[in-house]
Amino acid sequence: MADWQPAYARRAEGMKASEIRELLKLIERPGITSFAGGIPDPELFPSAAAAQAYADVFATRSGARALQYSVSEGYEPLRCWIAALMTTRGVPASADNILITAGSQQALDFLGKLLVTPGDTVLVARPTYLGALQAFSAYEPHFDTIEPGRSNRTPASYADPAGQKMSGARVKFAYAVSDFANPTGETMSETARLQLLELADELEIPVLEDTAYTALRFDGSDVPAIQALDLRRCGSVDRSRVIYLGTFSKTVAPGLRIGWVCASRAIISRLVLVKQASDLNMSAINQLVMHQLVTDGRHDRLIARAREHYRVKRDAMLQALAAHMPPQVTWSRPDGGLFVWLTLPEAVSSSELLVRAVDEAGVAFVPGGAFFHDGRGANTLRLSYSLPSASAIGPAIERLARLLK
Amino acid sequence: MADWQPAYARRAEGMKASEIRELLKLIERPGITSFAGGIPDPELFPSAAAAQAYADVFATRSGARALQYSVSEGYEPLRCWIAALMTTRGVPASADNILITAGSQQALDFLGKLLVTPGDTVLVARPTYLGALQAFSAYEPHFDTIEPGRSNRTPASYADPAGQKMSGARVKFAYAVSDFANPTGETMSETARLQLLELADELEIPVLEDTAYTALRFDGSDVPAIQALDLRRCGSVDRSRVIYLGTFSKTVAPGLRIGWVCASRAIISRLVLVKQASDLNMSAINQLVMHQLVTDGRHDRLIARAREHYRVKRDAMLQALAAHMPPQVTWSRPDGGLFVWLTLPEAVSSSELLVRAVDEAGVAFVPGGAFFHDGRGANTLRLSYSLPSASAIGPAIERLARLLK
Repeated sequence: MADWQPAYARRAEGMKASEIRELLKLIERPGITSFAGGIPDPELFPSAAAAQAYADVFATRSGARALQYSVSEGYEPLRCWIAALMTTRGVPASADNILITAGSQQALDFLGKLLVTPGDTVLVARPTYLGALQAFSAYEPHFDTIEPGRSNRTPASYADPAGQKMSGARVKFAYAVSDFANPTGETMSETARLQLLELADELEIPVLEDTAYTALRFDGSDVPAIQALDLRRCGSVDRSRVIYLGTFSKTVAPGLRIGWVCASRAIISRLVLVKQASDLNMSAINQLVMHQLVTDGRHDRLIARAREHYRVKRDAMLQALAAHMPPQVTWSRPDGGLFVWLTLPEAVSSSELLVRAVDEAGVAFVPGGAFFHDGRGANTLRLSYSLPSASAIGPAIERLARLLK
Repeated sequence: MADWQPAYARRAEGMKASEIRELLKLIERPGITSFAGGIPDPELFPSAAAAQAYADVFATRSGARALQYSVSEGYEPLRCWIAALMTTRGVPASADNILITAGSQQALDFLGKLLVTPGDTVLVARPTYLGALQAFSAYEPHFDTIEPGRSNRTPASYADPAGQKMSGARVKFAYAVSDFANPTGETMSETARLQLLELADELEIPVLEDTAYTALRFDGSDVPAIQALDLRRCGSVDRSRVIYLGTFSKTVAPGLRIGWVCASRAIISRLVLVKQASDLNMSAINQLVMHQLVTDGRHDRLIARAREHYRVKRDAMLQALAAHMPPQVTWSRPDGGLFVWLTLPEAVSSSELLVRAVDEAGVAFVPGGAFFHDGRGANTLRLSYSLPSASAIGPAIERLARLLK
């Protein structure tokens, strides 16, 4: 009877997730200093405020509205608040430009669902966020690499039918993590953002701007959002080709599963239909609670605390890398976010290093290959400083470095 | 700049939802007795228990775990509890057979995503749950009608290459709401369930069994779940071709967005990858709270109360229909659930009737056409007795009946 099962299961195979799932279990293993998880430090969660917010919801609304189905676009006061936040980020928006999603991950899935037909081409950085590759892969695109400002491929070659055939089919969108990217920690320069917009103009495609880490800047000044730069040209979010993905997972807490999309009303109205078909609507109670957790300046205070908290850890990691790594190892120097990206000598496999790192050094990380759509990156790895204490980071980096000498 | 937008938006067009969305807004309109919503009566929500459960989560776990990312398969104690529930429903299962989803709707979406390639055939009842048609439509299948026991199409015709061409392509699964179906209120007989399993055997396809209303039985005895009947033949859920979809939305509350899939480990392990790619994981806190709301006999007590509550309303509606409807109108007599299905004379359009019903009788319902995959059903409509008070149901049905005389 089981012989019918393999016949229809190919879809899950594009989602090369099991390796990462196993890795993430290392976080919980006692005695391991884990740089593997890209998850926020629970010390920062506003637990007391959240407890109060849940209590307030029941005290003031008797639970009826909080426990009922709700509208697919999301809780309107929260959408209004996010629209005002977007305005401070250079994107004047109204609630009609906002859809609430189950974290940014659901927005990535919905945009793949809305935009991609099997065989279409999707442009991504190399490396890029593994979860984006997983979300898009469900819709069976061909991936190609976008390298604004240093592309080895011209826009014309994408528009060329022969080029399309070579690369799969029509390009449907470009995806970029603009600030302190997962996995590299790097930030796109304003020039690179403008070049990406020019490429998108030539290809007539939308740009998906993932801002999961944008609020967590430690040094330097904000670079305008790609969507904000587009608005300087087109004048209004309703005319923008940029689809902005935001989340509260890194600034408030991921366990409420709340993120958002900011885009033209034309896009949002279609994404609302996708939301309805996919899971009807978000948890009403979690949206009411999130609204209480961010209003009246609370979001700014949470961000200020998170910046200081992670800056100390970032400093500890960069200092330890400089002090202990052999000269043939290089790494990124992020101005914010949660990640440092290491490049080992060509001949060194980070997957093989991980086995030794766990066994001999008590250190875990994520091998970099998973973040490449084309199988490269065997000599790279991602370090996250978010979870270990600042005092544990230095000794763990020193132990890891010893394996590389 | 806006000219690039329509080019990639065809996906949302299969999800003919906007009409229904507008209709559901009527629920809120003052002075209207709405039979339109299929949503549970908030009077039944365990608000005090939920408030206590949220408080307990923070009191005992300091919020850290409740507010963090969590595993994609779902909170293990809740999965264990559901596995025990499935055992009482004739399906001995373990936690590895359970995936927690954002309501049944997300399970429908995930199964479409896992199983359907554009052009495949999906077998559904006619009429069937609109949300299932919407979820599957995103993956662009061809729909065909399954009528166990009175099929005008033989299994051989689906297996026949010519038949496949005619109907689109290979049949990928059959979908059925087994008890008190949305929209008809009808329950499949044990014979019909066995016939569906035989058809599935011949076609070598899985059966998706949607049990959203199963717990809400008022009269008669339970019919074994299709999955339980399959287990009598194949011996184990790991060998079953049935994928069982359950939800807490109709028995506890929909606002926590928690449902489940019970299936073979081979299916569940693939759905876990789909979950991870789609939205990473469920809200941790809502799963902790749901676990507290259903354990220690609380789920049974909630169900007992809901059954009594809706039985009174169902009786009020059936009595009023019998007393007031003209003889050329017929309707279903559900033994449970939330819906009665009306068939008007062939020439009467329920969409046109709705306009008059709202304006002249202060009554809303859902025209039946939306529940048909093939555009039929213009003379049908769905009445839900879940929201109006028992005393309001009779007079509203009387006013509606007057329009049909």
